[in-house]
Amino acid sequence: MSTDLPVPETRVLAIASHVSYGYVGNTMAVFVMQSLGCEVAAINTVHFSNHLGYGQVKGTRVSASEITDLYEGLTQSNLNDFDMMLTGYLPGAASVEAAGKIGRDLKYKATTRPGSLFWVLDPVMGDNGKLYVAADVVPAYKNLIKDADLILPNQFEAEILSDVKIVDMETLKDAIKVLHERYRIPHILITSVSLPSPGAERHLSVIGSTLTSTATPRIFTVTVPTIDCHFNGTGDMFAALMVVRLREAVSTVEGLSDKGSWVSNDEVEAPNLPLARATEKVLASMHNVLLKTKQKKDIEVEKYKAKTDGKLEEDQKQYKLVIARASEVSVVRNVDSLKNPSVRFTAEKI
Amino acid sequence: MSTDLPVPETRVLAIASHVSYGYVGNTMAVFVMQSLGCEVAAINTVHFSNHLGYGQVKGTRVSASEITDLYEGLTQSNLNDFDMMLTGYLPGAASVEAAGKIGRDLKYKATTRPGSLFWVLDPVMGDNGKLYVAADVVPAYKNLIKDADLILPNQFEAEILSDVKIVDMETLKDAIKVLHERYRIPHILITSVSLPSPGAERHLSVIGSTLTSTATPRIFTVTVPTIDCHFNGTGDMFAALMVVRLREAVSTVEGLSDKGSWVSNDEVEAPNLPLARATEKVLASMHNVLLKTKQKKDIEVEKYKAKTDGKLEEDQKQYKLVIARASEVSVVRNVDSLKNPSVRFTAEKI
Repeated sequence: MSTDLPVPETRVLAIASHVSYGYVGNTMAVFVMQSLGCEVAAINTVHFSNHLGYGQVKGTRVSASEITDLYEGLTQSNLNDFDMMLTGYLPGAASVEAAGKIGRDLKYKATTRPGSLFWVLDPVMGDNGKLYVAADVVPAYKNLIKDADLILPNQFEAEILSDVKIVDMETLKDAIKVLHERYRIPHILITSVSLPSPGAERHLSVIGSTLTSTATPRIFTVTVPTIDCHFNGTGDMFAALMVVRLREAVSTVEGLSDKGSWVSNDEVEAPNLPLARATEKVLASMHNVLLKTKQKKDIEVEKYKAKTDGKLEEDQKQYKLVIARASEVSVVRNVDSLKNPSVRFTAEKI
Repeated sequence: MSTDLPVPETRVLAIASHVSYGYVGNTMAVFVMQSLGCEVAAINTVHFSNHLGYGQVKGTRVSASEITDLYEGLTQSNLNDFDMMLTGYLPGAASVEAAGKIGRDLKYKATTRPGSLFWVLDPVMGDNGKLYVAADVVPAYKNLIKDADLILPNQFEAEILSDVKIVDMETLKDAIKVLHERYRIPHILITSVSLPSPGAERHLSVIGSTLTSTATPRIFTVTVPTIDCHFNGTGDMFAALMVVRLREAVSTVEGLSDKGSWVSNDEVEAPNLPLARATEKVLASMHNVLLKTKQKKDIEVEKYKAKTDGKLEEDQKQYKLVIARASEVSVVRNVDSLKNPSVRFTAEKI
């Protein structure tokens, strides 16, 4: 057995999209979790050739009944004793409901053993003010979230779920409060908050919170510098790393793994929460991997420019394809960065 | 970048089955190749909940047109510049033909750059005297093999493809000769030969051969002790490790990567072939992983027996499920064994 893995054997059910080429959805998440020692059962919700950032794609969506069917296949052979579940992109309201049924079934099985099933839910609906799912997916998610343990909305998704427009720190805190209250969700991480700031350097914040027993949010933030490049699949990478690092952080606190939803005692302050500790490590790994990806991208684009005699941009379609490919996150050859995050971004109380 | 990876970045197209739980087909092969540094694009040919050894399964088969469609998705976005291709289980004659078209397309693209596309073909048809595909899959494979670079039949598949019944070393050599001649295939590995032997210890041999320029086989064998346990997915593990280790062995010989089908000069003797070197490392890794799997299996079965008060065998169906699950190859937490094979089984000339 490898001794350099951060977690004991952890069985994860991962429900998300699959692409043949590149790293988004389960194609990202499964490898990330496996390389850190998780046994991952993947139920893929689409089978696409590549992610949508290429502007063209071939493949098929999986129906809700096919998702259900695969889970029933696991169940009938006693293969569904998972420790954690991670749900990502679901291609429609019926699939969201199917994932909800699976989550509730796993939760029900775990009733007598608090903390034995932890559900990380990424409510994939849109970004930057734009929905990229059908309108009926939104209420389907709203029905789902109360059964999850941790949700990972981006800023836009947090706004949709909370009906609070996030424009400053106060409205952000309001949104978190509403999410906790409305959905009884114990852990929240808003994965990409970009508020106007006086500093010169552009940065991105992750804001998290774990409820106390008296339903008070404990809010922290971790801020990282922005890398000037558009990546796909970073949400999936964040979620997959979070599964591992949260499990790791919780396992260092005696008894916490046996508490429902892994909620820390009330005396634990926001920046000391396992959720905060995990976020620090996740962001450290990601920053390192994305910096390396950016370097690789720049080299590849330069190479291509040289080959096309500087005329790369002339063919807009080709240009888009080259950029999309060059920006694929370099995961497989950067496992060291996943395994050994050097924490540089620390959680602060808000 | 990881410095402990055996190969430079290698882009592999992997066409095989996918299961949610456990390790067979692409679920095995993709992780094995990724953990050794390959960028793998997976086209999954079935989406099953688990492998067939459980005696029950849910999920769907992928049609030949869906396989073709995913490949066309890669092609239209210039994502099909692969270095290697690995084809495994294909769920019918039409899928075999679809994989053949993909292989020929990649080969055609590589015409002007010899050695730039290497196709490892596992002609999955059956084992131990039994076909487990439809009868029309056999002629479909026979039409395919002449375009591959390396085939990995087991003893039964080698018999089907060569029409030679393998009963001793002489008939084995005949079969290899026929395969080379009939299909003009430069490299052959017969992955599980079990001939009557006088020794007490049970063992399994892998027999390989690379043609010379005068079409003479160079035959070697590597023998390993048998582990008393039935595993699923070992063929897929063998194939995935072979992709990596052959690429590695070939890259240590100057100029060989640029020769068509990576065929070594005539003066290279059988046990010194890159194919032989690669086989040694593959088998060393596998033996280590399977020994650990067997230990894990024994512990799990004992635990279950204790829990059921020794009555495990009474319920035959439950017994089968417990055994199947306990025998799942332990891959994810044994990456060290994949990365660092300590060669103990050496190739010998036949």
